[in-house]
Amino acid sequence: MEIITGGVATAKGFEAAGYEAGVKYENRKDMALVYSTQPCAVAGVFTSNVAKAAPVRWDKNVVTNSPYAQAVIVNTGIANAGTGTAGYNCCRQTAECVAQALDIPLDSVLVASTGVIGMQIPMEKIAAGVEKLAGLKEPGTEAGTIAAKSILTTDTVSKEAAVQFAVDGRTVTVGGMCKGSGMIHPNMSTMLGFITTDLNISKELLQEALSMDVQDTFNMVSIDGDTSTNDTLLALANGMAGNEKIINKDDNYYKFVEALHYINETLAKKMAGDGEGATALFEAKVVHAATKEEAKLLSKSVICSSLTKAAIFGHDANWGRILCALGNAGVIFDPEKIDIFFEGKDSAIQICKDGVAAEYSEEEATKILSEPEVRVLVDMKMGDAQACAWGCDLTYDYVKINADYRS
Amino acid sequence: MEIITGGVATAKGFEAAGYEAGVKYENRKDMALVYSTQPCAVAGVFTSNVAKAAPVRWDKNVVTNSPYAQAVIVNTGIANAGTGTAGYNCCRQTAECVAQALDIPLDSVLVASTGVIGMQIPMEKIAAGVEKLAGLKEPGTEAGTIAAKSILTTDTVSKEAAVQFAVDGRTVTVGGMCKGSGMIHPNMSTMLGFITTDLNISKELLQEALSMDVQDTFNMVSIDGDTSTNDTLLALANGMAGNEKIINKDDNYYKFVEALHYINETLAKKMAGDGEGATALFEAKVVHAATKEEAKLLSKSVICSSLTKAAIFGHDANWGRILCALGNAGVIFDPEKIDIFFEGKDSAIQICKDGVAAEYSEEEATKILSEPEVRVLVDMKMGDAQACAWGCDLTYDYVKINADYRS
Repeated sequence: MEIITGGVATAKGFEAAGYEAGVKYENRKDMALVYSTQPCAVAGVFTSNVAKAAPVRWDKNVVTNSPYAQAVIVNTGIANAGTGTAGYNCCRQTAECVAQALDIPLDSVLVASTGVIGMQIPMEKIAAGVEKLAGLKEPGTEAGTIAAKSILTTDTVSKEAAVQFAVDGRTVTVGGMCKGSGMIHPNMSTMLGFITTDLNISKELLQEALSMDVQDTFNMVSIDGDTSTNDTLLALANGMAGNEKIINKDDNYYKFVEALHYINETLAKKMAGDGEGATALFEAKVVHAATKEEAKLLSKSVICSSLTKAAIFGHDANWGRILCALGNAGVIFDPEKIDIFFEGKDSAIQICKDGVAAEYSEEEATKILSEPEVRVLVDMKMGDAQACAWGCDLTYDYVKINADYRS
Repeated sequence: MEIITGGVATAKGFEAAGYEAGVKYENRKDMALVYSTQPCAVAGVFTSNVAKAAPVRWDKNVVTNSPYAQAVIVNTGIANAGTGTAGYNCCRQTAECVAQALDIPLDSVLVASTGVIGMQIPMEKIAAGVEKLAGLKEPGTEAGTIAAKSILTTDTVSKEAAVQFAVDGRTVTVGGMCKGSGMIHPNMSTMLGFITTDLNISKELLQEALSMDVQDTFNMVSIDGDTSTNDTLLALANGMAGNEKIINKDDNYYKFVEALHYINETLAKKMAGDGEGATALFEAKVVHAATKEEAKLLSKSVICSSLTKAAIFGHDANWGRILCALGNAGVIFDPEKIDIFFEGKDSAIQICKDGVAAEYSEEEATKILSEPEVRVLVDMKMGDAQACAWGCDLTYDYVKINADYRS
C-alpha cells in the first residue's frame, strides 16, 4: 500500500467540484459535488441520533434500496435537520436537480448537508448551485481538493487522504475527504465523510468493510460529545480499476480493508486535531485492557472528559483527571494497578505508577504537553486488548465559536 | 413545612466549625467539622467512579458497619484520591485525631476530602487543624455558615438550606450544606454534601429516604459530565427532636421525605447555578415522556450538551442543539412531535413546534436567555412522565479555571 496525494477525485472515473452558492455564508464555497462516470456499489453508515436530518433519511434509503449510486451533492450552512416534511421535500428536489443535470437516475443521487439545525434549505440557490457544479466537475486530485474545501464549516483545514495498492496486477486507488469540527461525537459514522475507490467489489462487502472499520476509526473520535443529526460516511466503488470483482473475503478484500483503514484513521485524526477551537490533537491509547470493548470505553472516556481536555489546553500534567475519567468509563478495574504515560514526538514520561503519582519532571511534562499532538498511554495490566481514541483540547475558542454560532 | 435560615448546625445537638489549616491554599478556611453531641443514625450515598478516593472507601465502611456516627471532618485542597495505601492510612489517621479530640469512637468519624487528585494529604497540618476545630465548634446557624464556607473550592458562594416541620407535636429541623463547582456529574451522590437533622428515625429508613431522593435531585445535576472520585452525601439524624422513633413508612416518614427533598433540590440547584465559570443556572424540564427513566435521560442529555451550554452562555436561542441533544439521549421518539419552550421569570415563548421552528421573536428569546436562571421546557407528547435536570452554561471562565487548576 502506498500513501499518495489525493482525495475523492483521484480514483479512476471520479470527478468533483465546489461552488459558492450563497446558501448562508459569503465569500466561501458552500456546495460540492462528487460524481462517478460509472455506476458505483455504495455503502454508508449514519448517525445514531434519533433526530435524523432529512438527507440522512434520504441516503439510508438509497444505500439500502438502490442498485447503485453515481453522485453525492453536499451543502454547508444549513443542516436540513429539524425541518419536517418540507425539509425532506427539499432534499428530494435537490436530488432531482442533480439527476436531471447529470442525466442519472434519481435513486443514484446521495445528499449531505451540514450547518444550522432548524432552518429550511433555500431551494433556488441550491438548484442554481447544482447546475453550476454539473458544469464545473472535473477528474483529478485538484478537483478533489476544491470539493474538500467546499464542504467545510467551522473547520480550519480541509481533510483528504488517498492510497494505492495492487489487485490482480491492477492499481487500485482509494481516496476520501471529510469535514467536522463541532457537534462531533460520531456514532456509526462521522459528521460528513466521503470515500471513493475504483476497486471492483460487491456492495455487501463494501458495506461490511465500512461498517467494521468505522468502529475503530471515526467512532473513536469525539470533539464535544454531541452526536450530530447529520453524521454520514459514504463509500462509492465504481470498479474502474478493472480487477476481478471481490465477492469473498480473500486476500484482495483484506488489502482493501487495510487501505480503507488507513483512509478512515487518517481522516478521523485530521478531524479530531481540527476540532472547534482546538490547539492540539489529543490521543488516548489504552493497552492491556481485559477486552477490546473495555479498552474502547476507557480511551473514549479520557478524550471526552471536559476537565482533562481543559488541562491539555493548559499544558497541565493533571493526571488525576485522567484517572477520574477512566473511573467513569463504566469499566471495573483496580485503580491501584494503573500506569499512565505522556508521549511526545521524541520523548515519553511516566506520570502515574500503580495508581499513584510517579516521580517525574513537571518541566518535561509541560514540554510534551505543549506539542501539537498530545498522546496519553494508559496501561491497565489486565489483559491483551487495546484501543485508541482521538479528541482535542477544550479552549476559549471552542466557547467563543459556539456561544454565537448562528450569527 | 417551613423554610428557615440555617444549615448543618441548626438542628438540635449539632455543632460546626471552620478553620484555615493551610492544606493547600492561603488566606482561606480549608477544613470544617460537623459534630453531634449525641450519636446519630447515619446514611450515605457515594460516587459510582471506580477510582474511589480514600475517604469514600472509609465512609462507606462507617455507614455500613458502625452502629452510629457522631462527627464529619472535611478538608479541601487535596482530594486524597489516587493516593494508594498511604492515602488510606492518612484518612484513618485523620479519623483517629478526631476521635481523640472529641472523645468519640473511631468508627463514628466520617471523613471527606475535595481538591487535587494524586497528591498526599499533609498529615501534620490536618492533625493541627482537627485540634483547632474541636475547640472552635459551636451550635447554631452562624457556626453552620462558617463550616459551609470552609468546604468550598472553586465555588463562588456557599450552599446551605434548612426547614422545620412538626412530628408528634415536636419541631424537627433538617439542615444541609454542600459544595461542588467542577467535576460535577453526580452519580449516586454529589461532590460533598452533608445533611443533619434532630429527627428520631431508624438508620434503615434514613438510608432509604436518602438513596431514593438523590435520584431526582443531586443525580440530576451536571456541570461538566465528570463524575468525581470523591462524591459523598451524608445524612446524620441524632433524634434530639424527641419524637417517637420513625420505624415505618408512616405519615411522619413522608413529612421527612418532603423536607429532605426540599433540602436536596435546593442544594442541588445552588450547586448547578454555581458551576465553574457559570453565568446562569440552566434547567431542562421534560414533560409528557413515556416513562420517568426516559424523561430523566432526555433532560440530562440537554443540560450535558456542550454545544447547548455554549449557546446558553451566548444567549443564543439555538434550539436545534436542544433537539440534537434530545436525539442523543438514548430514547426512541418522533422528532416531529417535539415542542420546545424557553421560560423566563415573567414570560415564556415557544421556539419549536412539532419538531420545526415556531414563529417567535429573537429579541424576546434573547431577553429570556439573558436571565440568571434559564429554563427550557420540552413536551414529548408521549405519556405522563416528567423530570427536571440542572446544569449551567459553558463559559470562557470554565476553560480558564480548568486549564490551570493545579497552580
